[in-house]
Parts: sequence; structure tokens; C-alpha cells
Amino acid sequence: MEVRKFTIADASLERSPGQEAEVFVGNLVDERHGGPITIGYGRYGPGQTLAETIAVDDVMIVLEGRLSVSTGSTDVTAGPGEIAYMPKGQAVTIRSHEEGALTAYVTYPHWRPVHA
Amino acid sequence: MEVRKFTIADASLERSPGQEAEVFVGNLVDERHGGPITIGYGRYGPGQTLAETIAVDDVMIVLEGRLSVSTGSTDVTAGPGEIAYMPKGQAVTIRSHEEGALTAYVTYPHWRPVHA
Repeated sequence: MEVRKFTIADASLERSPGQEAEVFVGNLVDERHGGPITIGYGRYGPGQTLAETIAVDDVMIVLEGRLSVSTGSTDVTAGPGEIAYMPKGQAVTIRSHEEGALTAYVTYPHWRPVHA
Repeated sequence: MEVRKFTIADASLERSPGQEAEVFVGNLVDERHGGPITIGYGRYGPGQTLAETIAVDDVMIVLEGRLSVSTGSTDVTAGPGEIAYMPKGQAVTIRSHEEGALTAYVTYPHWRPVHA
């Protein structure tokens, strides 16, 4: 695969499978491209909550708004330019605030086959 | 490893090994933490050039400024909120513009053991 550049306009944002929340994700690079990692953008509506056990190592870079990530023992909030790292196996609740959020994400291995 | 949140203030930025350019990188998560991926921040001075054959899958999310990535056949420029993806094995020239750049990066596998 060649060097690529992506903007949010390149992502087809869809509701995350199995979720009811206003959380929309769009992969730019994934298992279809032959590499080891998934890259995409995610958009969170205001005040959304998403509970999940993280099946891959998942890095979210917050581009707009704020996201909080809670486990039983840890609660972090990341804003623009900040990074939230969710190691594989963590049970997390991700929560957006009143302004919603836009993220870029990178996962290893690919997110979709693990969640299928 | 627990869920973590990082800001640029958490990174100890150092000149990239073997490079003369004003390009400073700081890992936040790497081979010392037991996971599969490296996460960090990079800061590029104005008008810097860095030529490298990418030994890992390397994702740069531009947070400030602009970076251009050139191969023989492709030339992309990413600005704030945009993503440059450099697949493993690509020979690239990374170039900052007059305003410099700040990036977040994620690599798989770890960058440092491969470059040591």
C-alpha cells in the first residue's frame, strides 16, 4: 500500500454495530487493505454513552470536544490534541460531553473481525 | 495496562536517533509497557526534512501545522485533524512547512526496537 492522507471527509461514518448511541465511526484503513492496523474517524453526539469490553488495543486522538473513559478504577477525560489509550481487555464506558466529540482512532489488530 | 490519557506535556521530546533535523519525538507507550503498539507525540521545527524507510506501519495525526510526505510516486500534505499513513516498507521524505508541526503517532510494531 502507498502512503495515504485522510481527512474526515474521506470517512463514511456509520453507527457502530450493536450500539444504540449516537456514535458514528468510519474506517479509512482496515483488514481489507492488507496491513495490520485499522485507522478511522469517530463522531460522538452530545452526552452519549458507550459501554464496551475493548477487544483490541485502541488509541483515540481527540480532535474536537471531549471524551471521558471510565473503568472500575480509572476515569480519564481527553480534549483536543489529547490521547486516550484503551488497552485490549479493558471494560470501559466511553462518554461524550455536551459538545460531542470528534476522534481519530488507530487499533491493533483490526477492530471489525474481532467484533463480528 | 490500565486506560491512560496523554497530553503533549506528558512526552519527553528528544531528537530522533540518527537524525540531524529539528524533529523531536517522545513515546508515551512503547515496548516497555507490554502492549503491541507505540504511541507518542512529535514536534517538527519549521522547514525540516527527514528521509527514512519506514520499518513499521506508522500513522501520524497532525495536530498543528502541516506535514508533507513524499515517495517517488506520491506526495501528500496533511494539516490539523488530518492523518498521514505510512505503510511499512515505504521510503519517504517527511517535510514540515514554515509553521512547523505537532503530531500524535501510533506505530505497529514498536518503532524503537526496529530502529535500534
